[in-house]
Amino acid sequence: MIAVQAIIDKVKVDGDQALYSLTKEFDQQDLDKLKVDPALLKASWDALEPELQQALKLTKQRIEDYETKILYKDHQDDELSYVYRPLERVGIYIPGGTALYPSSVLMTIVPALVAGVKDIIVTTPVFQPNNITFAALYLCGVTDYVFTVGGAQAIAALAYGTESIPKVDKICGPGNAYVAMAKRLVFGDVGIDSIAGPSEILLYVDESTPVDAVVYDLFAQAEHDANARTFLLSESQEYVDRIEERMEELVESQVRGDIIKASMDNNHYAIVDSRDKLLEVIDYIGAEHVSIQHKDQDSIVEAINYAGAVFKGFYSMEAIGDYVAGPSHVLPTNRNARFSHGLNANDFRTSHAIISIKKATYNQIAPAAEKIAQSEGLFAHQRSVSIRRESL
Amino acid sequence: MIAVQAIIDKVKVDGDQALYSLTKEFDQQDLDKLKVDPALLKASWDALEPELQQALKLTKQRIEDYETKILYKDHQDDELSYVYRPLERVGIYIPGGTALYPSSVLMTIVPALVAGVKDIIVTTPVFQPNNITFAALYLCGVTDYVFTVGGAQAIAALAYGTESIPKVDKICGPGNAYVAMAKRLVFGDVGIDSIAGPSEILLYVDESTPVDAVVYDLFAQAEHDANARTFLLSESQEYVDRIEERMEELVESQVRGDIIKASMDNNHYAIVDSRDKLLEVIDYIGAEHVSIQHKDQDSIVEAINYAGAVFKGFYSMEAIGDYVAGPSHVLPTNRNARFSHGLNANDFRTSHAIISIKKATYNQIAPAAEKIAQSEGLFAHQRSVSIRRESL
Repeated sequence: MIAVQAIIDKVKVDGDQALYSLTKEFDQQDLDKLKVDPALLKASWDALEPELQQALKLTKQRIEDYETKILYKDHQDDELSYVYRPLERVGIYIPGGTALYPSSVLMTIVPALVAGVKDIIVTTPVFQPNNITFAALYLCGVTDYVFTVGGAQAIAALAYGTESIPKVDKICGPGNAYVAMAKRLVFGDVGIDSIAGPSEILLYVDESTPVDAVVYDLFAQAEHDANARTFLLSESQEYVDRIEERMEELVESQVRGDIIKASMDNNHYAIVDSRDKLLEVIDYIGAEHVSIQHKDQDSIVEAINYAGAVFKGFYSMEAIGDYVAGPSHVLPTNRNARFSHGLNANDFRTSHAIISIKKATYNQIAPAAEKIAQSEGLFAHQRSVSIRRESL
Repeated sequence: MIAVQAIIDKVKVDGDQALYSLTKEFDQQDLDKLKVDPALLKASWDALEPELQQALKLTKQRIEDYETKILYKDHQDDELSYVYRPLERVGIYIPGGTALYPSSVLMTIVPALVAGVKDIIVTTPVFQPNNITFAALYLCGVTDYVFTVGGAQAIAALAYGTESIPKVDKICGPGNAYVAMAKRLVFGDVGIDSIAGPSEILLYVDESTPVDAVVYDLFAQAEHDANARTFLLSESQEYVDRIEERMEELVESQVRGDIIKASMDNNHYAIVDSRDKLLEVIDYIGAEHVSIQHKDQDSIVEAINYAGAVFKGFYSMEAIGDYVAGPSHVLPTNRNARFSHGLNANDFRTSHAIISIKKATYNQIAPAAEKIAQSEGLFAHQRSVSIRRESL
């Protein structure tokens, strides 16, 4: 916590200069500018094979369609309205590191576009000139404010601004533990989405799902990183045993077999023999991804209270939701689904009540306001109300 | 920050024992139990004069009506739904100190009741047996879990649980700087609403509003505490001068004149001569309360983007919104309205997408998911998608 605060303070004081020196220290990059030339974004897009371009376009379209549907509508009423406004300027953090995730670009930026955000500022620790992150940014039309900065220093730059990087109103997007701590520390000076922890899935399956399909659903979760967690629930011990055996057989042949093996320490299996117990466990864990592939899936899904997202049925495996289903894959982890929700277009808007009391209503309710103000000892409040009666 | 973290750690380790000793240290109270006897809540309510009972009942009813209207509805669709669920257990912090605010009880708890929260746990540093905070809690029917604990230690108890105080999913409600810091530090382990700063109002008035009404609107803000801030905007220097003069005349006679005088150092006046400039200033400040009393108030209010709440017209003075209008008076301060919103019933619910892809849709979109998974090097994701094509 102290180290992250020191990075934030350094960026606050030294601005761009701090970003150059911290990027050299942490990312071993000797940059001569922070901003990415828009031509590089276009070149990255142009270099993609057409099938991948089409896949990303389809994904973008499906996210747009979904987010547009769930956008809140203003509540207009005679005296008490509630209205929504897009945020003016948001910062999106896109992780870099060993792997690049164009899907995360779409899953964070398209909701902001649907919300109508004016300026989208992107920071990402990606230093090669031609890459799929840049390509996805080009597809989104976000080309004016892309900066090759990562870590806590990127969060500080977005929160407080530097010579190059504009200060934003809210910072969204996943990141590592330093990014998460920095977001926590700048919260209040800017908005943040949530604190991301290791990814996780809870699967409830019955024997109608082929063993190999379940195995790859688990592997898909486990291959993210060594801290990924899986919870496999079933009514049948024998079925779970078969799944475990098959995992042992298949793990060696996986491209990311080492990571999968490491995270298999975080696999949990349980036999649940009653519906009440099942729902209690699901709600208690509040997992990021909850996948229900079971003959009673409709009634189970309806009864679930807490999940980052629910994937119902054999054709809704989590991996299709990670990419192309529509809802954002930026979801609450570590039981945060019990109080939080996945990123969506509404998170890129703010809202306020408009109170517009007519004289007749004033006459009805003013005495109550005066009475309570008096009970709280706030006599100027009381007078601010009562003086209207005398004024006009 | 370090001191608050130490308090949190102490409560985590020592539970109730820490609460007793910290309450003795910070509040000079030697408690023999933490939980308030429900009979005390009822006795506090019974002791209120009938007019105040009626005023609180009317306020409760108006908050309920408003919150019920703005509650989000589930979006049910064929393959992509989005649903809302009440939080299971929330903690409400009610400030104590020199003054008691039954209005804050209603403005935080009624939204939680409308949301359908199962358990509402209240902590408040109020130690006299008979008081208006207890009365308001009784009116809300929240009598099972009321604890006389305040400060950072109360936030820690709600976040992690003790022998007496149940762990909650989210903590809401205003508090002092220690409470605010504690909320920041526990965020992620539980949800929080927002970080409250000093209260503030921005007023835009023309000469149709009597000078004395404006003066009391400003005093009502200023009497909260010495850090309260006011921004008075007008087109007329002469009108502003008259308001200032009248403030000087009236301040001496105010019950809370000393506090008002102290916070008058935080009063800001400005003459704005164009509509564009006015809206730019309003949105830049993003004030907690924005009061527009002006012949063009309709078009101005429609164009405002960022405010905690907007009060339109002569009969919508902020003080009526503080009590009885309907929307919660727990609002974002310190420019947080640029990314946050006032507390409402939807903040006491969570939500998730339900992804339920049919086979025909799977056939259309699966190749895109596989293509992107491959580009990201996540081959178990790819296989989790492709294996469905072969399985059935």
